[in-house]
Amino acid sequence: MIKGCFDSLHEECGVIGFYDNNGYDVASMIYLGLFALQHRGQESCGMAINDDNHINQHKDLGLVSEVFTKDILSRLKGTIGIGHVRYSTCGINTRENAQPLVSQYVKGTLSMAHNGNLVNAMKLKSELKARGSIFQTSSDTEVIMHLAAIERTKTKSIEEAMENVMTRIKGAYSLVVMSPRKLIGIRDPQGFRPLCIGKLKDSYILASETCALDVMNAEFVRDVEPGEIVVIDHNGLRSIKAHCGQPKNLCVFEYIYFARPDSKIDGVSVHESRVLAGKLLAKAHPVDADMVIGVPDSGINAAEGYSQESGIPYGYGLVKNRYIGRTFIQPTQSERIESVHIKLNVLKSNVEGKRIVMVDDSIVRGTTCANIIKMLKEAGATEVHMRVSAPPFLWPCYFGTDIPSKKDLIACHNSIEEIRQLIGADSLGFLPADQVKYLCGSNGYCDACFSGDYPIPIEDIEE
Amino acid sequence: MIKGCFDSLHEECGVIGFYDNNGYDVASMIYLGLFALQHRGQESCGMAINDDNHINQHKDLGLVSEVFTKDILSRLKGTIGIGHVRYSTCGINTRENAQPLVSQYVKGTLSMAHNGNLVNAMKLKSELKARGSIFQTSSDTEVIMHLAAIERTKTKSIEEAMENVMTRIKGAYSLVVMSPRKLIGIRDPQGFRPLCIGKLKDSYILASETCALDVMNAEFVRDVEPGEIVVIDHNGLRSIKAHCGQPKNLCVFEYIYFARPDSKIDGVSVHESRVLAGKLLAKAHPVDADMVIGVPDSGINAAEGYSQESGIPYGYGLVKNRYIGRTFIQPTQSERIESVHIKLNVLKSNVEGKRIVMVDDSIVRGTTCANIIKMLKEAGATEVHMRVSAPPFLWPCYFGTDIPSKKDLIACHNSIEEIRQLIGADSLGFLPADQVKYLCGSNGYCDACFSGDYPIPIEDIEE
Amino acid sequence: MIKGCFDSLHEECGVIGFYDNNGYDVASMIYLGLFALQHRGQESCGMAINDDNHINQHKDLGLVSEVFTKDILSRLKGTIGIGHVRYSTCGINTRENAQPLVSQYVKGTLSMAHNGNLVNAMKLKSELKARGSIFQTSSDTEVIMHLAAIERTKTKSIEEAMENVMTRIKGAYSLVVMSPRKLIGIRDPQGFRPLCIGKLKDSYILASETCALDVMNAEFVRDVEPGEIVVIDHNGLRSIKAHCGQPKNLCVFEYIYFARPDSKIDGVSVHESRVLAGKLLAKAHPVDADMVIGVPDSGINAAEGYSQESGIPYGYGLVKNRYIGRTFIQPTQSERIESVHIKLNVLKSNVEGKRIVMVDDSIVRGTTCANIIKMLKEAGATEVHMRVSAPPFLWPCYFGTDIPSKKDLIACHNSIEEIRQLIGADSLGFLPADQVKYLCGSNGYCDACFSGDYPIPIEDIEE
Amino acid sequence: MIKGCFDSLHEECGVIGFYDNNGYDVASMIYLGLFALQHRGQESCGMAINDDNHINQHKDLGLVSEVFTKDILSRLKGTIGIGHVRYSTCGINTRENAQPLVSQYVKGTLSMAHNGNLVNAMKLKSELKARGSIFQTSSDTEVIMHLAAIERTKTKSIEEAMENVMTRIKGAYSLVVMSPRKLIGIRDPQGFRPLCIGKLKDSYILASETCALDVMNAEFVRDVEPGEIVVIDHNGLRSIKAHCGQPKNLCVFEYIYFARPDSKIDGVSVHESRVLAGKLLAKAHPVDADMVIGVPDSGINAAEGYSQESGIPYGYGLVKNRYIGRTFIQPTQSERIESVHIKLNVLKSNVEGKRIVMVDDSIVRGTTCANIIKMLKEAGATEVHMRVSAPPFLWPCYFGTDIPSKKDLIACHNSIEEIRQLIGADSLGFLPADQVKYLCGSNGYCDACFSGDYPIPIEDIEE
Repeated sequence: MIKGCFDSLHEECGVIGFYDNNGYDVASMIYLGLFALQHRGQESCGMAINDDNHINQHKDLGLVSEVFTKDILSRLKGTIGIGHVRYSTCGINTRENAQPLVSQYVKGTLSMAHNGNLVNAMKLKSELKARGSIFQTSSDTEVIMHLAAIERTKTKSIEEAMENVMTRIKGAYSLVVMSPRKLIGIRDPQGFRPLCIGKLKDSYILASETCALDVMNAEFVRDVEPGEIVVIDHNGLRSIKAHCGQPKNLCVFEYIYFARPDSKIDGVSVHESRVLAGKLLAKAHPVDADMVIGVPDSGINAAEGYSQESGIPYGYGLVKNRYIGRTFIQPTQSERIESVHIKLNVLKSNVEGKRIVMVDDSIVRGTTCANIIKMLKEAGATEVHMRVSAPPFLWPCYFGTDIPSKKDLIACHNSIEEIRQLIGADSLGFLPADQVKYLCGSNGYCDACFSGDYPIPIEDIEE
Repeated sequence: MIKGCFDSLHEECGVIGFYDNNGYDVASMIYLGLFALQHRGQESCGMAINDDNHINQHKDLGLVSEVFTKDILSRLKGTIGIGHVRYSTCGINTRENAQPLVSQYVKGTLSMAHNGNLVNAMKLKSELKARGSIFQTSSDTEVIMHLAAIERTKTKSIEEAMENVMTRIKGAYSLVVMSPRKLIGIRDPQGFRPLCIGKLKDSYILASETCALDVMNAEFVRDVEPGEIVVIDHNGLRSIKAHCGQPKNLCVFEYIYFARPDSKIDGVSVHESRVLAGKLLAKAHPVDADMVIGVPDSGINAAEGYSQESGIPYGYGLVKNRYIGRTFIQPTQSERIESVHIKLNVLKSNVEGKRIVMVDDSIVRGTTCANIIKMLKEAGATEVHMRVSAPPFLWPCYFGTDIPSKKDLIACHNSIEEIRQLIGADSLGFLPADQVKYLCGSNGYCDACFSGDYPIPIEDIEE
Repeated sequence: MIKGCFDSLHEECGVIGFYDNNGYDVASMIYLGLFALQHRGQESCGMAINDDNHINQHKDLGLVSEVFTKDILSRLKGTIGIGHVRYSTCGINTRENAQPLVSQYVKGTLSMAHNGNLVNAMKLKSELKARGSIFQTSSDTEVIMHLAAIERTKTKSIEEAMENVMTRIKGAYSLVVMSPRKLIGIRDPQGFRPLCIGKLKDSYILASETCALDVMNAEFVRDVEPGEIVVIDHNGLRSIKAHCGQPKNLCVFEYIYFARPDSKIDGVSVHESRVLAGKLLAKAHPVDADMVIGVPDSGINAAEGYSQESGIPYGYGLVKNRYIGRTFIQPTQSERIESVHIKLNVLKSNVEGKRIVMVDDSIVRGTTCANIIKMLKEAGATEVHMRVSAPPFLWPCYFGTDIPSKKDLIACHNSIEEIRQLIGADSLGFLPADQVKYLCGSNGYCDACFSGDYPIPIEDIEE
Repeated sequence: MIKGCFDSLHEECGVIGFYDNNGYDVASMIYLGLFALQHRGQESCGMAINDDNHINQHKDLGLVSEVFTKDILSRLKGTIGIGHVRYSTCGINTRENAQPLVSQYVKGTLSMAHNGNLVNAMKLKSELKARGSIFQTSSDTEVIMHLAAIERTKTKSIEEAMENVMTRIKGAYSLVVMSPRKLIGIRDPQGFRPLCIGKLKDSYILASETCALDVMNAEFVRDVEPGEIVVIDHNGLRSIKAHCGQPKNLCVFEYIYFARPDSKIDGVSVHESRVLAGKLLAKAHPVDADMVIGVPDSGINAAEGYSQESGIPYGYGLVKNRYIGRTFIQPTQSERIESVHIKLNVLKSNVEGKRIVMVDDSIVRGTTCANIIKMLKEAGATEVHMRVSAPPFLWPCYFGTDIPSKKDLIACHNSIEEIRQLIGADSLGFLPADQVKYLCGSNGYCDACFSGDYPIPIEDIEE
């Protein structure tokens, strides 16, 4: 499913929470959930488990399967737990930034795992520092934690405190919060990032995506609403909707790229959304060709759709080496081997002599696409028609999608025709910007990266 | 490509050799080649590099990207190198069994990497022990090494010695051998396992599969012939064909399962062979259905073929979690989570209400298939028709395919109809045994695991 | 030198700071300093280096030589640095408690490393939490950090802020503080823990002990005075003495056990102090014997003194295995092997037939001593006279010496004669309580662990 | 005890064997024994345990406490076991050289651990290679293993085979050999290296030194005689003395440096031997001085003796940092810090103004001594008189003591007076060569490194 033409450019996180009422091993369940959400972040991961107001935690750099050993899992006892997977582009000090964030505050322990980006974090941070606050990480989550601790001194409950915090923080946040006796799920009023509720017997789960429920054999209950606070405690689940009711702005890139195809977000199947993107693309940019292929894994589903709509047979043109991992040593310059060729190889016998439609979900810098097209042509493809299941990237994202700066975005400096020439394609078509809406079902969505229409003002001035 | 319904049952290896004439960093090239061959063995790997008759080596348990660090690679200097990836089912003492095997012998250093299994290794080992030989590993390779060292005392060259050794050893062996000044490739007279020759500028490569040549941007020269000894030294490449001319018995499972789809073995594209298997299957076992899906990754290509032949649309029904790795902690019994469900999830929206043809390359014990079919039905598939792109496993393999013992093979104890019921399929069809021949082009092949027709007698009595 | 009869019971830390004016590699110098201070804490260590207001840091569980690799050191660039070694008895979550503590605050970055224990940390923590503060570690250092950040919003400089903080915090603290442009050293007004100033060419060093200066070939300048704030910046070193002038209460256990014998603390050689303790002991508890031995390493120096005063020859009776390390696997109960016997063995030929005076620096539970005495007698010692170079432990320490609770202290429940019988000694003598004063030169000292006379009130009620 | 002026120059090994008759956990006992023998080799270690003719083994680079985890130990089941610790100066490929060496041979499994060096290994290796043998390590042990396997084809028992092997191999070897049902201990006819027998209830132990018996609380039975083969099986212990009766040539350096002071070798206490060396030194090279100090740890015991004989008080002048370990990062040249200063610091207060006698066990290159003397003088010592408890090194050792080549030996190129000037001592005295005999009790000994009198001819020409 996961990474395509622009591996390593996006920044994203996944969150999970588990409130046990059945004697489950909470750490094992969080582990499974994090494993299912691994595609949302491969840099670091962690979990915090509440054992009667004592927090057992472990977090580190690495994949879920690397960070947690049997020994470590067995020490993470407790009845409420939260977990986090993270991906970021900054290389340094990242162990400090691993989540969940765990603290002691006025009412015992407070732990948080956060997916998203605030647009006024720097402003809030300045205000808090002026008050004497200290920050030990560079994550927005710590800003939220500070505000929650301060609000908690003035309110009767953590959920009331969080309700107040939500009037202060602006931007994208899907949060799981753990207090001594409660598991709380919060989704920002715009609903930028997904968050859903599951149930396993009498136990409750919060998760970024439904695929994390499936791996536990849990039942999907519903999505958390934009602006909603969901409180789970010994009384069961209840909801606070004071911040609900604003227009939804779900990140369209969750459908196009981030989420797993087997997840359903706000009622829309990710796989179906991608197939539809392919169909729309086929209508908008038809071409006479012999085979439709997808760039694994990100372009596969849209390629299916393109094939279905166009009637051009679907096939495999590229094979992906799955063993590359974090620790692969890239060849040096002198070896003159393109790093994309190490990951992808052409199915020469299947592309030879054919006119190919190649579908991917985006073009960022263009170099990877150019290399793949070159490989296909060298293998004997007579034509390569590039189709992209999203519009061109033109604007930065402030809500948690790590799009490179404008100077690196090929579409900011070149016309479609110029891009086509740069990547060596015989034709090039993007999903028309006015059709993005069809990918999201009836959900309101944010497509600022394509349109520049930011649904809320960006308060922080970029560094 | 790699592991399907019966992950962890096969035993296989991959080998590579590089003879530098251009100043390439040999260790880096071997590294890339091993990485491309990783699907042939994920348990251990290693390489030995000849630096003017001093051997620099490193081998350990783990994936290529885990075992080799930048530091280690930089210490592996030299101009000739060989490498090995390995998979085995025995859990203990395996570091000792990692290859290449490196030794000092009468003429300096001798190193070997071996893919295959001898059928008279135990007999030879007994003879050698009776002569006073010691064995420090449990691999057949050490038997070959001993024989080579003994023959070398009576012959004028290592290639002549190997020629004599070939009259002693029986079974499957694709070997790369490194002497102080030569790189030698050998394929057994039956040609059970693949081995091919590549060229990169003036440098030579030997590799189990062509995909290892592709990753280096090397040119495919030709396959090593069954029985051929290929000698590469400062005079270039020459060939010894004294053992050539016997009927070829290429392992049909290389096409069905082992090899990467982008490799070409003995002139036949692996991908095309699998697609053809799917087509033959569709002809042999047609069914009225709405969608053909493949079990990722092993059933994908045959599913393509089934779809093309039957006209039933190809689609995705299962999503595979690629992050599972070696270190994943399986849920305990008490968590009641099937391990196959952790790796595979159903694309519910795509299978709901549909009659599904599910294609995989084999059924071993039947439990995994049964679980997948159950998952599909729970997701709303109205029918699941299982199609297997190979005949049923009925016989043990003595040539390097790790098929479980008869007591564990579902097909040894049940009729097709009984298997169908056990796995919960609505219908079940295997590739007819008499059609296996079409998968191998014009190559002679071994299908003893289906037919019991062993091309050479098995001399060792099984322990 | 370091650990004696009661290994693993003390809690202590060591701190170091380096302000470069000569182009030294600051991380390497901090590394050397921490290595020299390793005896003050073997559980975790870390350093933070200020590279023009960006903090490069690394900390982890383990010894200095384990935590820092060449690679890591080379990434820790900068011109001001602080470091910390730590020992604690709590096993869990300790990575979070590793120091230095690094934060962003109103004026950029603020980093601290702390040796000592506050006696009003809990009270201050409660006040801070009531104000909305969060705590991410369980160390007192974070309390000081919070107060500093708050004070800094009201003051003109970090040193002024720290001066104010010192009116709030009570207890033992030797602190190194790093702001964007300053290195600051602070010693609490009672001077419980040592801190000294060194100079290497034009560069300044702060360190817990002089042995850390020696390893860098740095020159000893002077000790920081109790209550003094030493500020080092581009103007050189200056001093703030607003909190100076209270009676000194240097921890007497620094001389008896903690510090390295080659260090000089507040003008007194640690080695000389220990030798003197041995002499006083010989005067107070003379005995007729053949050889004086010390329990390595903590009793060695006092044994020297006992020998010199008594005229009984000094000799070796015990050999210590130095390879035991953190990772040694203790024998199980069933193996019936005393863990002290694994570390210590008797020089049978040297003790056989002799009357032995055995000197150590303390008796805590008594079990270790009992085992050593048993070993000596089994080896043929005819008499074993135990001499302890400190008075009996009777009171808990609140200033950073981890003395077990009263229930575990043998001296709280037994008379001297009862202890003698329990440990199997032929006679037993402790350093008389009224002679402790001689160990500290002219320095005022704290001996509350022996006397119960706490120099300042303990505000926190123990949990 | 362990490493002195010339750390990292010697090559040595330690061996251990355990034959269980009482239900002991053999791996744990071997672990304890190896831990006690760690001073004989810190580079790699390993053990092999015989579980009813199946060998469970583990070996790797590192200290005993690093190489073995609880998990690994628990998998090493069985009733007979052997172990090895090893030190060598060659940095590369050493994992392959780790022992015990384990093999399958004509009669099942054969395992060996070896301490010593053969003087005709190369000659034997050539003969074996000419016969067709292969060598997978560079250790002499493999030569012995080959010969044993060949002899076993012609004899009735492994002990008879070993008896024959002993007629072929020349040099130093203390061997523990494990066959499917026997534990065998062998000491070469000259008795170069020690080997002793212990008993724990009804179980037998073989060990390089008695300190390994002590740690298990085992009873010392006796030393293995030079030339003796000791066979332990279900019938108990029996002895083969066909090779006994030659003059003993115990390595004198075992007493001077290698062995632990608490060990007794061939009836002589190592500690007593060193004290005696100090006494002899005092008689041979008296001097008027204020304090005798030893260089820790190797010079400590001889310093005791010097003090006793001379009447000059014994004291401490140097403190050793024990935390340096394998992984310590040496300062770079530019830091101008002598590596000896990192390990050793002067007790300034104790040497200031004093005339010092400094005792160590050897001078190799002279640089370390020179640095220590410089440190002492800088600390205020008015005179430093160097005394060495052995004669000067003049000849290479072929029996397992790694003495550097002549070009690096200071005594090969300089007179005593020249050495004195080079190291900056006020006087210098070595143990007179004719007094070495007193260190060994009534044992015959080898002092070829001092005298050049090799007790047996060196057949191999040095490479």
